Amino acid sequence: MLNVAIVGASGYTGAELARILYSHPLVSITAATSRQYDGCTFSEVFPHMHGLVDVTCRNYSIDQIADLADFIFCAVPHKTAMDIVPPLLAAGKKVVDLSADFRLRNVGVYEKWYQHHSSPEIIPMAVYGLPELYREQIAEAQLVANPGCYPTSIILALAPLLKHALIDGSSIIADSKSGTSGAGRAASVGSLFCEVTDGFRAYKVGGVHRHIPEIEQELEALAGKPITLSFTPHLLPVSRGILSTIYANLLQDLSEQQLREYYHEMYAGQPFVRLLPEGRQPATQYVRGSNLCDLGITIDARTKRIIITSALDNIVKGASGQAVQNMNLMCGFPENAGLEHAPFFP
Amino acid sequence: MLNVAIVGASGYTGAELARILYSHPLVSITAATSRQYDGCTFSEVFPHMHGLVDVTCRNYSIDQIADLADFIFCAVPHKTAMDIVPPLLAAGKKVVDLSADFRLRNVGVYEKWYQHHSSPEIIPMAVYGLPELYREQIAEAQLVANPGCYPTSIILALAPLLKHALIDGSSIIADSKSGTSGAGRAASVGSLFCEVTDGFRAYKVGGVHRHIPEIEQELEALAGKPITLSFTPHLLPVSRGILSTIYANLLQDLSEQQLREYYHEMYAGQPFVRLLPEGRQPATQYVRGSNLCDLGITIDARTKRIIITSALDNIVKGASGQAVQNMNLMCGFPENAGLEHAPFFP
Amino acid sequence: MLNVAIVGASGYTGAELARILYSHPLVSITAATSRQYDGCTFSEVFPHMHGLVDVTCRNYSIDQIADLADFIFCAVPHKTAMDIVPPLLAAGKKVVDLSADFRLRNVGVYEKWYQHHSSPEIIPMAVYGLPELYREQIAEAQLVANPGCYPTSIILALAPLLKHALIDGSSIIADSKSGTSGAGRAASVGSLFCEVTDGFRAYKVGGVHRHIPEIEQELEALAGKPITLSFTPHLLPVSRGILSTIYANLLQDLSEQQLREYYHEMYAGQPFVRLLPEGRQPATQYVRGSNLCDLGITIDARTKRIIITSALDNIVKGASGQAVQNMNLMCGFPENAGLEHAPFFP
Amino acid sequence: MLNVAIVGASGYTGAELARILYSHPLVSITAATSRQYDGCTFSEVFPHMHGLVDVTCRNYSIDQIADLADFIFCAVPHKTAMDIVPPLLAAGKKVVDLSADFRLRNVGVYEKWYQHHSSPEIIPMAVYGLPELYREQIAEAQLVANPGCYPTSIILALAPLLKHALIDGSSIIADSKSGTSGAGRAASVGSLFCEVTDGFRAYKVGGVHRHIPEIEQELEALAGKPITLSFTPHLLPVSRGILSTIYANLLQDLSEQQLREYYHEMYAGQPFVRLLPEGRQPATQYVRGSNLCDLGITIDARTKRIIITSALDNIVKGASGQAVQNMNLMCGFPENAGLEHAPFFP
Repeated sequence: MLNVAIVGASGYTGAELARILYSHPLVSITAATSRQYDGCTFSEVFPHMHGLVDVTCRNYSIDQIADLADFIFCAVPHKTAMDIVPPLLAAGKKVVDLSADFRLRNVGVYEKWYQHHSSPEIIPMAVYGLPELYREQIAEAQLVANPGCYPTSIILALAPLLKHALIDGSSIIADSKSGTSGAGRAASVGSLFCEVTDGFRAYKVGGVHRHIPEIEQELEALAGKPITLSFTPHLLPVSRGILSTIYANLLQDLSEQQLREYYHEMYAGQPFVRLLPEGRQPATQYVRGSNLCDLGITIDARTKRIIITSALDNIVKGASGQAVQNMNLMCGFPENAGLEHAPFFP
Repeated sequence: MLNVAIVGASGYTGAELARILYSHPLVSITAATSRQYDGCTFSEVFPHMHGLVDVTCRNYSIDQIADLADFIFCAVPHKTAMDIVPPLLAAGKKVVDLSADFRLRNVGVYEKWYQHHSSPEIIPMAVYGLPELYREQIAEAQLVANPGCYPTSIILALAPLLKHALIDGSSIIADSKSGTSGAGRAASVGSLFCEVTDGFRAYKVGGVHRHIPEIEQELEALAGKPITLSFTPHLLPVSRGILSTIYANLLQDLSEQQLREYYHEMYAGQPFVRLLPEGRQPATQYVRGSNLCDLGITIDARTKRIIITSALDNIVKGASGQAVQNMNLMCGFPENAGLEHAPFFP
Repeated sequence: MLNVAIVGASGYTGAELARILYSHPLVSITAATSRQYDGCTFSEVFPHMHGLVDVTCRNYSIDQIADLADFIFCAVPHKTAMDIVPPLLAAGKKVVDLSADFRLRNVGVYEKWYQHHSSPEIIPMAVYGLPELYREQIAEAQLVANPGCYPTSIILALAPLLKHALIDGSSIIADSKSGTSGAGRAASVGSLFCEVTDGFRAYKVGGVHRHIPEIEQELEALAGKPITLSFTPHLLPVSRGILSTIYANLLQDLSEQQLREYYHEMYAGQPFVRLLPEGRQPATQYVRGSNLCDLGITIDARTKRIIITSALDNIVKGASGQAVQNMNLMCGFPENAGLEHAPFFP
Repeated sequence: MLNVAIVGASGYTGAELARILYSHPLVSITAATSRQYDGCTFSEVFPHMHGLVDVTCRNYSIDQIADLADFIFCAVPHKTAMDIVPPLLAAGKKVVDLSADFRLRNVGVYEKWYQHHSSPEIIPMAVYGLPELYREQIAEAQLVANPGCYPTSIILALAPLLKHALIDGSSIIADSKSGTSGAGRAASVGSLFCEVTDGFRAYKVGGVHRHIPEIEQELEALAGKPITLSFTPHLLPVSRGILSTIYANLLQDLSEQQLREYYHEMYAGQPFVRLLPEGRQPATQYVRGSNLCDLGITIDARTKRIIITSALDNIVKGASGQAVQNMNLMCGFPENAGLEHAPFFP
């Protein structure tokens, strides 16, 4: 059994790591850290885990974490992560970091969208943890930068199109909608039940969301040239789920069938991408709780645009599930260990 | 008091007409028709109206309707409407028709997207019932074709831009999200609570939704030239509300402040359009239950696109409220009679 | 126009007072106080009111409030209210206090369930603001203690039974379920969307909720003898609404029809109580947004119990609507002024 | 691998059986029957299972089912079940029947609450499938009558109290609240999203719900004497979950600690009952998707009543999960095979 630690266990991604790892046949949770809930059992923080995961949350030092675990999921916010990860690496530990701190390969871009980076020398060690694109590198990595939830949904949707230069890179518009768990578990008026339920709105409109440079970095790597996209996030009155509706102008006259083959070629062997049959559209409720990303492909014949719809669970494939998938690859476990359960519907 | 009939009273738009008209100081509901609920009191169909609107639903003939009422709201589906409206007009009644049957001025376009039209001679009589564009014509009309919910949200959002030729007409993408009341009150598996709640999906993807010709007709009238747009509807797990996120490429280098002035010029005197201050975004929960349409204007400086977000209540400004607004204009009542209540939040 | 102030305007009851008073033909909101949002316009705090109520929230002193308004709604928490209300009364103002501070006639009971009371001499001035029981006294009052939301739903349900000694007072069990707006607008983890949605739970189980002494006080006044009831509150994943399911053992063998007549006698002339016909059950969605309380009456023939189901909107009839109803009575306005709108469904 | 059939696969309990059995290490789904969806793949009926369970639904004859499977889950409505189960038993198959047809040991009671029973001779073969009470008999059974969702939540809550004669059997009131999946997947206006969301109501009030005789049968077996209880079901705006709040008068003066020991004694070794620590209350969101039943125990010192709160997922422990638990026992599998996953939150 691999001893794993969850650093930053009291947020929703921490809870989801615990839920997934509880069912994982090859690991054991030996440490869970929390500043706020120091001394509380995990089930006092998350009552659904009562009797299942009863480790006590502690405000452990990095040395203590390194003593207790051989693999670390770092689920703290960006800025905090960049201080915690380097000493864990120095102690020889493998790490999946769920923050943004090691996702951007260009530290200048990071500092433009976030803030000063105190460990730029670590960045080159990090592999971007999207197994569908970087499986081999992940298997060799000591540090994986787990992708953002929106980026995962958008990059998987566009990868075959950009790799084969089928769309105009300047025409991409990604209109994304996320469940409220994406806002985290911090108490705030904007995330209260009464503010969110029975409502819907956009936020960070106009190209200002911090996931944009991450999306563009990966789209550019696929396309081999600069990409600037429009991205608008929205807040859905659901707990979990992201659906991205992505528009781009086709450069050639291709049928849906032809396009579908490019997707099939890229994703046929991938365990967690489902290419939906013609005429079917993904829905967040059909991937809920699973590590799946569902893709729907449609051509708008009137406007010569392709429309890709992409659905995933933002705290599974968009965060904790993908983190476990990365751990599996890094440790030589079966890629789907702990992640085989079917979506949860209704 | 004006005697009004609601033809097709058992759907959500019928219920909402009753709710609004109940508070209207100048009208009285004298007839409500329903085939399915013939003989039931209105409050047996809609228990919230118990003791408030207790008219009995009847499967009245057109002659009976004409005897009972001087103003008719026709809230039946398209195809049915085209058979009911002409004899009511012939009987001298004023009619607001909430179906699609008289919205498209070109019968060929209608027949391409819907089906055979049996009363094409009536079409020229109909005024498109968007008061912000056609207030004077509505005031003179005997027949008003009440706009669709999606079209209302999109046309109001784009009108100033197209009127002043500020955007590239071929670049328009409208990504719209609607509450479930838009699917009507017919029993269907797809509208069940368990299928819709905690979920989100797109439908009729690829330029096939029937509201497209209606939107394009009005955008073309504003622009003075052909417009082909991409439009994708989505289903929200809320009862009411539409939010459209609309993207277009700017033709000139304009500031948000300059753009805002075009909107201000068009909407300053309009009672039901709220132009939100800089940095504020509309939300469906902030217009719920009201006849308001809220607009947010943002420029994405990175992509030179303008992004308009537009929120309304699909069964008020998107249907029954707008129908009452049209009735007010047609009858010389104050435009906001019965429609003054504030949005319903939380 | 009567000048009114809302003291504590930034909570949900404050927002709802603003929404209702906006439609009230005889009053004008001249002051809204908030410590937290001092200097913000009302619509910055509650965007749905943009353009409708744009008074600026201020941390006014009591003297300033007294200068600005002749009638005060005090919507601050208990303990704070007992400091604010006395000087407003001394300044000759009429006050409806929405806190618990003046509801309990016995200061000892208050101090047992809440804390020390600093203005016990004011308590005898206060009339309990349930118009169905105390209409005449309210009309004469300078200070009305607006009832709690749970108490309103339970007292109205039981009043005819206790007044006529039809049930065993020791057998009463009230199982109540409330929407989340009842928890207020303060940021707290327990009220986050993700914690509440798609879930349900009881809280303060075992006779420890502070509304119990208030309920018992009024039931005892009706019965003319001591009452001890079981009361269990629950949290519903809805914004608004309380439904109480109330059980009691019948002392006599009465038919539903006979029982219904006792209710009819008490409530026939009351504008805001709807006695539902046989076989119909109230639902929170059928009273949402209105000042109505719906009652359903059923006998369980197998157990000789009567079961009363009672539904209201916790921030209308359970708080702000009832407060306006009380103001109407205190000022000689029509009792339903500003409160005539139909329930909001769907 | 055991070959299993799901008869009546197109309802929510059928979907949940598929979801659970997909993760079960010892079984294979070899047949799924549906009249309505004859010829559709399972994932056309339930898109979340795309690529996971792709068996084709067929309107198989009983002989065909018997050819295809050795173990049958019968998930059709009562009345239909009583025709299907006997020939399957005659063919030597083991059956878990999820309908009510074989739950009531007294056919006269069945016929009073349901309708004529055409296979009364089979009733004595059936074991009531509540493993916490009948584990040994289930292990030997060929036919298990899977309990109703409400009965499971109520019987587990009261069993220790009745077995030890700690409460007055005539004082029991069970106020239960269920998610909407309990109403099934048939299209009906009452189950539409817009009718259920943001609302709450009681139904079948007054001792008329068909689960009553089933509850009383099992409570009487525990108590050794007749029990008549009050039971009121309610409809929650959630997909899954039942929470029952159960009141009874204590016969002795016992502390919570003493009562807790009776529960501990009965449930300590049970894998799917969680007795919550003092001061903690169950919630449907803390058992969602799991086979767990959580119990909270509180004494109301003022009224000498005990209040048990009991939460489970109505389509897992209340239906399909319990059915799989029963299959595991009947087949000698580990009792928790396929049922180990943690609750799904948020």
